Amino acid sequence: MDVLNIRTNKREELIDITELVNNYIHKSGLHNCILLIYSPHTTCGVTINEHADPDVKNDIIRKLKELVPLNGDYAHIEGNSDAHIKTGLIGNSAMVIVENDTVKLGRWQGIFLAEFDGPRERKIYLQAVKSV
Amino acid sequence: MDVLNIRTNKREELIDITELVNNYIHKSGLHNCILLIYSPHTTCGVTINEHADPDVKNDIIRKLKELVPLNGDYAHIEGNSDAHIKTGLIGNSAMVIVENDTVKLGRWQGIFLAEFDGPRERKIYLQAVKSV
Amino acid sequence: MDVLNIRTNKREELIDITELVNNYIHKSGLHNCILLIYSPHTTCGVTINEHADPDVKNDIIRKLKELVPLNGDYAHIEGNSDAHIKTGLIGNSAMVIVENDTVKLGRWQGIFLAEFDGPRERKIYLQAVKSV
Repeated sequence: MDVLNIRTNKREELIDITELVNNYIHKSGLHNCILLIYSPHTTCGVTINEHADPDVKNDIIRKLKELVPLNGDYAHIEGNSDAHIKTGLIGNSAMVIVENDTVKLGRWQGIFLAEFDGPRERKIYLQAVKSV
Repeated sequence: MDVLNIRTNKREELIDITELVNNYIHKSGLHNCILLIYSPHTTCGVTINEHADPDVKNDIIRKLKELVPLNGDYAHIEGNSDAHIKTGLIGNSAMVIVENDTVKLGRWQGIFLAEFDGPRERKIYLQAVKSV
Repeated sequence: MDVLNIRTNKREELIDITELVNNYIHKSGLHNCILLIYSPHTTCGVTINEHADPDVKNDIIRKLKELVPLNGDYAHIEGNSDAHIKTGLIGNSAMVIVENDTVKLGRWQGIFLAEFDGPRERKIYLQAVKSV
């Protein structure tokens, strides 16, 4: 298992980590495998979506804020229940296919760390499994 | 890696691809593995849910439309932010277990392509990894 | 493939299955792998979130009830469309990394069965794939 260290800058944002993941693959000499990209946090997830137009990631963040507002009828005393719930909706991991040293994403896809309770130092675990 | 080609028919619909996935498994001679079913698109996901009663998939589509309407306070100029957000909520991939040449689904489960911005020609990537 | 049998107690609840998963890993002699934790049901999912403060799981359940109420404009005649939709949002599986006989979770993470239409007898499928 390997770890990416990522510094987030706002309370809520999608951070494009596609290049970090590709750099890791090149460095590790991974060829044909599936890669699990896993957030060990409970207020920050991993998602795959469009990274060409930054408006898309901003729309995702804004809509999630509207559906799950910071202040609501929450019991959790730390005041970040919204971030836990958003992480549950978005998911805390993604799986991607690696072929010939590169993540086999669709044309418009990027891999994002989804920060919902930053800014913080975050870790992303990477673990490959061999393709059949 | 292999690819399924799927033609969708409406702007938003769940399309049952269980049989396509099982046909692929039989043809490929896969026996015991985990299979990643991956959408390389950013406005269409993959999900697993009931396929016995078609009302279930219709209820899913309708509720998602209510939570994330087509028209809203979105910045993305292409007018399909709702589709990107729904893809983020549903997820762009699923993992299933293959045992003895068949997807090991639960009794009521089917695998669906979740189209949120069709009709279009879509691709689904399939990649197997060997079970321990 | 192996199976965990879990009895749920309420219509909607998150049940911590982290210890059951770790017991399975120890018993099975799994060392370094990725483990797929898969719900074969369509009204109960799997999610990873905080298990230190039980208020977090209760807030997740309550917010999902608010977003997707039991009674709504649903066509499915069984009256549990909300449970199918919540399963779609949360997801029916999770992937975790196993290192040295233990699930490599983050400090605050637990693995939960997410029951949305209990109480019932539920099954969770477990399938390991070997790490590279």
